[in-house]
Amino acid sequence: MTSQEKQEMVVTPWEVSGDIDYDRLIEQFGVQPMTQSIADRIAKHAGYMHLQLRRGVYLSHRDTDWWLDEYEKGNKVGLYTGRGPSGHVHLGHLLPWFFCKYLQDAFDADLYFQMTDDEKFLQRDELTLEETVALTYENALDVIACGLNPEKTFIFSDTDHIGEIYRLGLKVAKRVTYSTVKAVFGFQDSTNIGMIWYPALQAMTCFLQSSREGRNIPCLIPAAIDQDNYWRMTRDIAEKMGYYKPAQIHAKFLPGLAQGGKMSASQPDTAIFTTDPPKVAAKKVMKAFTGGRDTVEEQKRLGGRPEVCNVYAYYYFLFEEDDDKLVERERLCRCGGIMCGECKKQLAERVKVFLTEFQEKREKAREVLDEFLLKPLNEKE
Amino acid sequence: MTSQEKQEMVVTPWEVSGDIDYDRLIEQFGVQPMTQSIADRIAKHAGYMHLQLRRGVYLSHRDTDWWLDEYEKGNKVGLYTGRGPSGHVHLGHLLPWFFCKYLQDAFDADLYFQMTDDEKFLQRDELTLEETVALTYENALDVIACGLNPEKTFIFSDTDHIGEIYRLGLKVAKRVTYSTVKAVFGFQDSTNIGMIWYPALQAMTCFLQSSREGRNIPCLIPAAIDQDNYWRMTRDIAEKMGYYKPAQIHAKFLPGLAQGGKMSASQPDTAIFTTDPPKVAAKKVMKAFTGGRDTVEEQKRLGGRPEVCNVYAYYYFLFEEDDDKLVERERLCRCGGIMCGECKKQLAERVKVFLTEFQEKREKAREVLDEFLLKPLNEKE
Repeated sequence: MTSQEKQEMVVTPWEVSGDIDYDRLIEQFGVQPMTQSIADRIAKHAGYMHLQLRRGVYLSHRDTDWWLDEYEKGNKVGLYTGRGPSGHVHLGHLLPWFFCKYLQDAFDADLYFQMTDDEKFLQRDELTLEETVALTYENALDVIACGLNPEKTFIFSDTDHIGEIYRLGLKVAKRVTYSTVKAVFGFQDSTNIGMIWYPALQAMTCFLQSSREGRNIPCLIPAAIDQDNYWRMTRDIAEKMGYYKPAQIHAKFLPGLAQGGKMSASQPDTAIFTTDPPKVAAKKVMKAFTGGRDTVEEQKRLGGRPEVCNVYAYYYFLFEEDDDKLVERERLCRCGGIMCGECKKQLAERVKVFLTEFQEKREKAREVLDEFLLKPLNEKE
Repeated sequence: MTSQEKQEMVVTPWEVSGDIDYDRLIEQFGVQPMTQSIADRIAKHAGYMHLQLRRGVYLSHRDTDWWLDEYEKGNKVGLYTGRGPSGHVHLGHLLPWFFCKYLQDAFDADLYFQMTDDEKFLQRDELTLEETVALTYENALDVIACGLNPEKTFIFSDTDHIGEIYRLGLKVAKRVTYSTVKAVFGFQDSTNIGMIWYPALQAMTCFLQSSREGRNIPCLIPAAIDQDNYWRMTRDIAEKMGYYKPAQIHAKFLPGLAQGGKMSASQPDTAIFTTDPPKVAAKKVMKAFTGGRDTVEEQKRLGGRPEVCNVYAYYYFLFEEDDDKLVERERLCRCGGIMCGECKKQLAERVKVFLTEFQEKREKAREVLDEFLLKPLNEKE
């Protein structure tokens, strides 16, 4: 395949498309670039440097250094991430969840995991509320399969657990005007009033552990950068509400199998779902966009281009843990020593093994699902 | 006292002030004037004509005739009213609740009673959520003291019962745009996003019984006309959601003790609260605005003016059940046969008796409060 013209970059909570320019995002969103010092500090507490830290998956942050300071002072720290259950989970979703598991273990941190089934219902004309709520529990199996600790993980459905979160959501909502959400999210006159309310719930979770435990607990949010609008809004009201500003650490998107954009459930042929039969997923890999040349002859002469290759990206982000082997694969590719067909075949094999194992864990998760769900507090906050 | 200049009429869900022109309201709000035929049909089923129907408290309606048709066809019918718990309950609040009790008995109808403690928190800068939720349960005692049937009454707090109502609220919210609530409620850029969401919950209750029982049940809302904006909005989406349009029957406002406007908790000296010590209430009555003249001599010569007299209004709306005696009181007043002091003293005595009895019922209500609260359904709708 040959590269096409650059596509315009769009990065919002509801759409990520085009060619992603992370430097521009860092500037646009006003966040700090990730530093080696932060990666080193995390690795020190974890006992090892996670693949995602070594490979630069986390491109930027806000106050992650402060969150680490608090932990190093001996204070309790917490984690928050979430999922919009609009369909099945794909590999792109798993990256921050694997990283959450790593952070949870390293910092002995509770993880509040929000399933925004209300938002997905409100946002998508074609989805019923019954469907998005059902997907919450299906997707929760994937979260659990990432190896999280049931003692320290609190998965909740906005809809089914609204009784546990509505009060805090109202307190946020009272401090956020339409003017703000119009500016931050681009809401318009045609936006429905549920969507306008919803940011209060996504913001609320930043304070949920503090509210439930009755003391201020620094909260770090590992998530893709497209969710950043929510945190900008939340940071503006946090201190007025008596809470710390939430810290963030922003992941890059795992590319889709086709050219451009992130792996997306809205383009099912270009995404590997955790529920895909391994053989089906392997076939998708075999059709992936690569950095190969038009002909074998040309590729042997000029070499491949791993920098634009999605197959290489999959090794890089998830499927080649060994840095030396990754470097060797890149070298081979660049010198024309491996053709795309062979490289895809090897990836397809790894994807099959990964999915087979993951799906076993996912099925086992059904039995322990309840242990991971948020429970009511005995007393009201 | 003498009459002053007319004050501009304001009638919205959040403010009622000035001189109320009901004919203009009927035209502005596009509702039907109340008819004798509707009053007669209600009275036939109840076995008697309620004071509020005889005295024209209900000035207008929408589809109340249809609601009666449905009942007369043998179909189940339901009732919905509510309260914004921002303070103590005054006599003006009780009027529609007494009428609900009358309708509940007459039509064997379930009454869904919504306590909008979320809205009051969101609307009023000075109120905390803890305060408005506490007021829900205080105000519920007043509702119960009106004599409602615990088997057929479902009082709920938006905040504490959100788990029972959020799904239906979301389904409403998805169908209502910002454009609509801006036009209907006058929301602005400075409105908080909780207030923008809230109309979904007030609308939702129109469908709550139908949703819980899994079949369409005609819903009649007895309430003051200032709540009409909500029903206009709700009627526009009802059929698209598969529900009947809610019917309304609109009450006039009980005047305050001072001149102009309705009895209002925001002007505590002019309202008689159900929690007022009877002696305090009696003193408020003695200071009421009347239709009296500047001097006793003048009043004996010209007579009083019951048509502008708040004391007369209290007899009319609540404290003189006997039509003949009411007519006699009016005649006496007009011919200068009774002075305002005497008339107020008689009313003050009746108010004391009423409050003493009501407060006993209100205290007894504490013991049975739980029987009146909405319970979760065993199965999700």
